[in-house]
Amino acid sequence: MTIQHTVVFRLAHAPGSPEEAEFLDTAQATLAGIPGVSAFSINRQVSAKSDLAWQFSMVLADQAAYDGYNAHPEHVGFVEGRWVPEVVAFQEYDFVAR
Amino acid sequence: MTIQHTVVFRLAHAPGSPEEAEFLDTAQATLAGIPGVSAFSINRQVSAKSDLAWQFSMVLADQAAYDGYNAHPEHVGFVEGRWVPEVVAFQEYDFVAR
Repeated sequence: MTIQHTVVFRLAHAPGSPEEAEFLDTAQATLAGIPGVSAFSINRQVSAKSDLAWQFSMVLADQAAYDGYNAHPEHVGFVEGRWVPEVVAFQEYDFVAR
Repeated sequence: MTIQHTVVFRLAHAPGSPEEAEFLDTAQATLAGIPGVSAFSINRQVSAKSDLAWQFSMVLADQAAYDGYNAHPEHVGFVEGRWVPEVVAFQEYDFVAR
């Protein structure tokens, strides 16, 4: 069953800063290219009822594709090298059709 | 700009119960028909990293459509009559394209 994997997050960088844009551009270039990832998108979170500012969303065909993404060296490297030092708050959600 | 309005939530009802199914069916029937709402969907939240279990997602064409949905009597009535008494935890997020 198709899984929509998402994470909503806030960066340490100032909104509108070059550092923010570079983080998002690098995420797009790195994560969208990992095998099994489709429909990768970066969205702005605009509800005042959350203080998180961005969302990554992607679709994975099944749990095997999900596990492959999680274990992929490009994903692990991005998490260790960029996500951990630059993201100050986040929440993951995964969605499947009812 | 198109807005994806979402809420992730957990019900007071037991997972798999008739009360859960009836709540979700009523939400679908009530909310999906409100003018301006498109792509209404109910999704199961399956990440163990959140204790919320369901998501409502819909697309609204712009802020005016969003405001119209929020103020619509069918929405207000659902919130007061069903959401408040039956939902024990929730988080809203609204997304727009980067």
